[in-house]
Amino acid sequence: MLENLKLSGKLPKEEYNRIMENLGVHLGLVQRKAREAKRPVILVFEGWRGARRSLIINKMMQQMDARGFNVYSVVHLTEEERQMPFFHYFWKHLPAKGNISVYHRSWYYQKNECEVSLRDATHKWNATTFEHINTFEKELTDDNYILLKFFLHVSEKKQKENLAKNYKTLGKAWREVSPAYDETGRYEEFLERYEKMLAATDTVNAPWHLISANDSRQAQIDIFTAIVEGIEAALKTKNVEEALPVYPNNSYDVLSTLALDKDITKEEYKEKLDKYQERLTTLQIEMFRAKIPVVIGFEGWDAAGKGGAIRRLTAALDPLGFNVNPIAAPNVVERQFHYLWRFWTRLPRPGTVAIFDRTWYGRVMVERLEGFATAREWRRAYEEINDMEAQWAEHGIAIAKFWLQIDKDEQYRRFKEREENPYKTWKITDEDWRNREKWDAYEGAVNEMLVRTNTEHAPWTIVEGNNKYYARLKILKTVIDLFEKKLGKD
Amino acid sequence: MLENLKLSGKLPKEEYNRIMENLGVHLGLVQRKAREAKRPVILVFEGWRGARRSLIINKMMQQMDARGFNVYSVVHLTEEERQMPFFHYFWKHLPAKGNISVYHRSWYYQKNECEVSLRDATHKWNATTFEHINTFEKELTDDNYILLKFFLHVSEKKQKENLAKNYKTLGKAWREVSPAYDETGRYEEFLERYEKMLAATDTVNAPWHLISANDSRQAQIDIFTAIVEGIEAALKTKNVEEALPVYPNNSYDVLSTLALDKDITKEEYKEKLDKYQERLTTLQIEMFRAKIPVVIGFEGWDAAGKGGAIRRLTAALDPLGFNVNPIAAPNVVERQFHYLWRFWTRLPRPGTVAIFDRTWYGRVMVERLEGFATAREWRRAYEEINDMEAQWAEHGIAIAKFWLQIDKDEQYRRFKEREENPYKTWKITDEDWRNREKWDAYEGAVNEMLVRTNTEHAPWTIVEGNNKYYARLKILKTVIDLFEKKLGKD
Repeated sequence: MLENLKLSGKLPKEEYNRIMENLGVHLGLVQRKAREAKRPVILVFEGWRGARRSLIINKMMQQMDARGFNVYSVVHLTEEERQMPFFHYFWKHLPAKGNISVYHRSWYYQKNECEVSLRDATHKWNATTFEHINTFEKELTDDNYILLKFFLHVSEKKQKENLAKNYKTLGKAWREVSPAYDETGRYEEFLERYEKMLAATDTVNAPWHLISANDSRQAQIDIFTAIVEGIEAALKTKNVEEALPVYPNNSYDVLSTLALDKDITKEEYKEKLDKYQERLTTLQIEMFRAKIPVVIGFEGWDAAGKGGAIRRLTAALDPLGFNVNPIAAPNVVERQFHYLWRFWTRLPRPGTVAIFDRTWYGRVMVERLEGFATAREWRRAYEEINDMEAQWAEHGIAIAKFWLQIDKDEQYRRFKEREENPYKTWKITDEDWRNREKWDAYEGAVNEMLVRTNTEHAPWTIVEGNNKYYARLKILKTVIDLFEKKLGKD
Repeated sequence: MLENLKLSGKLPKEEYNRIMENLGVHLGLVQRKAREAKRPVILVFEGWRGARRSLIINKMMQQMDARGFNVYSVVHLTEEERQMPFFHYFWKHLPAKGNISVYHRSWYYQKNECEVSLRDATHKWNATTFEHINTFEKELTDDNYILLKFFLHVSEKKQKENLAKNYKTLGKAWREVSPAYDETGRYEEFLERYEKMLAATDTVNAPWHLISANDSRQAQIDIFTAIVEGIEAALKTKNVEEALPVYPNNSYDVLSTLALDKDITKEEYKEKLDKYQERLTTLQIEMFRAKIPVVIGFEGWDAAGKGGAIRRLTAALDPLGFNVNPIAAPNVVERQFHYLWRFWTRLPRPGTVAIFDRTWYGRVMVERLEGFATAREWRRAYEEINDMEAQWAEHGIAIAKFWLQIDKDEQYRRFKEREENPYKTWKITDEDWRNREKWDAYEGAVNEMLVRTNTEHAPWTIVEGNNKYYARLKILKTVIDLFEKKLGKD
């Protein structure tokens, strides 16, 4: 794609000043328009070292309002950030609605760097493919993020000139300030690499803008024009929902076949509980030492016993090694981002356990059934969720997902008990009763979810929950097995 | 304080179970009450290694709702966190209104660790005194945070027993999981240290709860009872504002004596601007290499030229080395915290520049005059702000604060110009005109602020602003001088 890009020509300074006066005003203008329309914008700057990326971004910043405008770069990532999954940094720094995030080197550089100047050949990021990148970008543009990607192309000669200039100004400090990998002396090799990258990631929803950057003034004009036009065009696009294909009316049935009434005595329970918790305490320490992160998600009917099961689990864990994330309807901050943002930003540090009391599966249950997500949104969520979990698993995160199943009669008994116990009434609300009326619709959605997101790397464990003792032990045992498997003890 | 604490006695298990059944319910109850009353709670657990802190915190967590409940510890701080000022980690993790933050080892441990097992004898945290700690805690309790501090005391014999037990369970992994400094064999020395610490920080607003932890069951009962009673009592306290002393009617005058109309030609401006910006570019690199963080705050009348000055400053800086933080009225998230929280959490990383377009001084200007802060709140703000800046300066942060001064006629001219320029009208609102009517009241508050917060470590630079060229150059020159001073070039 780069070979036909014209690298010659030079824009006279007067001409540049004349165009820029008007263009600068328009940059500020589209920023305000995007803010008013509450559309988040991501600008990606990739390309050769020495293509004057910093200069161009700085020029742009002079025209932009600093409110809601942030610049990021992956060249100065901390060790802590490098221990998280590949896309974690980018999820964490997603722009909120109406804001702009600028990437001075982004996920593209991060992927190249893995291969080119790897500090650690066994680093988990190496497994990241261009398909992962395309999926990530698709999730953003599907959610109405405006994504513009620029590749700044310079000739080998121009690169040498610019780098020599940088070295002259900054001297030895230059490598510290700008520790990106060096392409010099390997221009042809990198040209081939970049061509492949551009071809593999030039998608309909996020095409590359190839910028001839030999003449930095012309490059500025081209980039800023593309930003103004790109944002204007995106804002004009009405969200016309194309007709969706008819949804397959598959009848999945996972739940109705379960034998829910497992029998277990209190004595047997107590004995096994002690044993399991003791085992878990030891295993948590080993997981900590092995730096293996863990994600445990709990879903299930209201009053199915999620809270009690989580307490029996955490009772065995060191309080510094886990946290419990209760997930309710997204709050005012969370609503400013992609729906998966609040899960990515709660990922466990190496060696620790993140427990989710309700999870990202709300998208295909409550959000689907109550209309908080459009058909287009919840339909694509199965794939998005499977992909997210696959990325986590590839990064070495141990994942357990529990569905706590009780039958309708058992739920009725528990609701009544909560109403009658003065210390539990706060746990039961009118909404719980209202949700109960939609049992059948939820059951259909749950069945579908359990089938479509039951993957090898993140399988569902369905827990027969009418007997709380049985349920808790099954959950503890499943977590123990998972830890042992991850530690190579199975 | 510890010598008279009774360490003998043992609570029978049946008695413990009987008390705990009721106490556990009440722990959950006061948590919900604090949440409803929107009062943030901080629980600090300090004391001897081997006092079974983790066990007690875990027991508490079993009774608490995970929503809005977080446990932190300073034993696993990252290198990145250790590079920020002493209290940064604690400001960052302040509980939002209605939430609970638990510290399994807090600022007390962090201070002790500096002195006891210092990794770096020149670390800036060493300068932190008990007065700093008392000030920090006072700022929290003044702002209605409920702060309960527990010191878990055990005898030397009991400590040895408990540590031996830990070692037996966890083996060699123990030191990795719990890397706190070791007191064994130095009990008397540490006893003295802790006595001093407790005496120096046992304040009216944040007294220590000394807990006899030889018997862990009794310790739990004592701590949980103190939490229940402490939160209940705090919630009952009506915010009765004691009569404030009459406010001194000092007539400060800084502004009226200024000669605002500085003369400078466009040619001279352009020439100097180029020179200054070039110098700044070089100095920024040196500051980056020296890892010196920089905070630059801009205050001034509406239309005084803050935005234009900031742009001339940032034009010289590498976009990866600075950010601009525009400060408006606190948003819905920021309102959940102490008013200084949003500044502490925006502190620059080592070697980078954080620019604030309006600052924490809003507390003693707009918040004072518009009644967003009570008299009690804004009166104590001068001291709080001076203390915050002193802490930053002690940590080595370079601080510049600018007040951009224009006269009332000049403001009128600029307002009119903005109204008439189609590209600038968005910059002027009815509120600007309304604020202008309160010029005299603001002038009084500004004069007082400039006098009372003009400290050696963070002096104000008052910028004569009627001539924009002069103002911009003065600001650039001041920043250059600051950088050179910090780099030892003055």
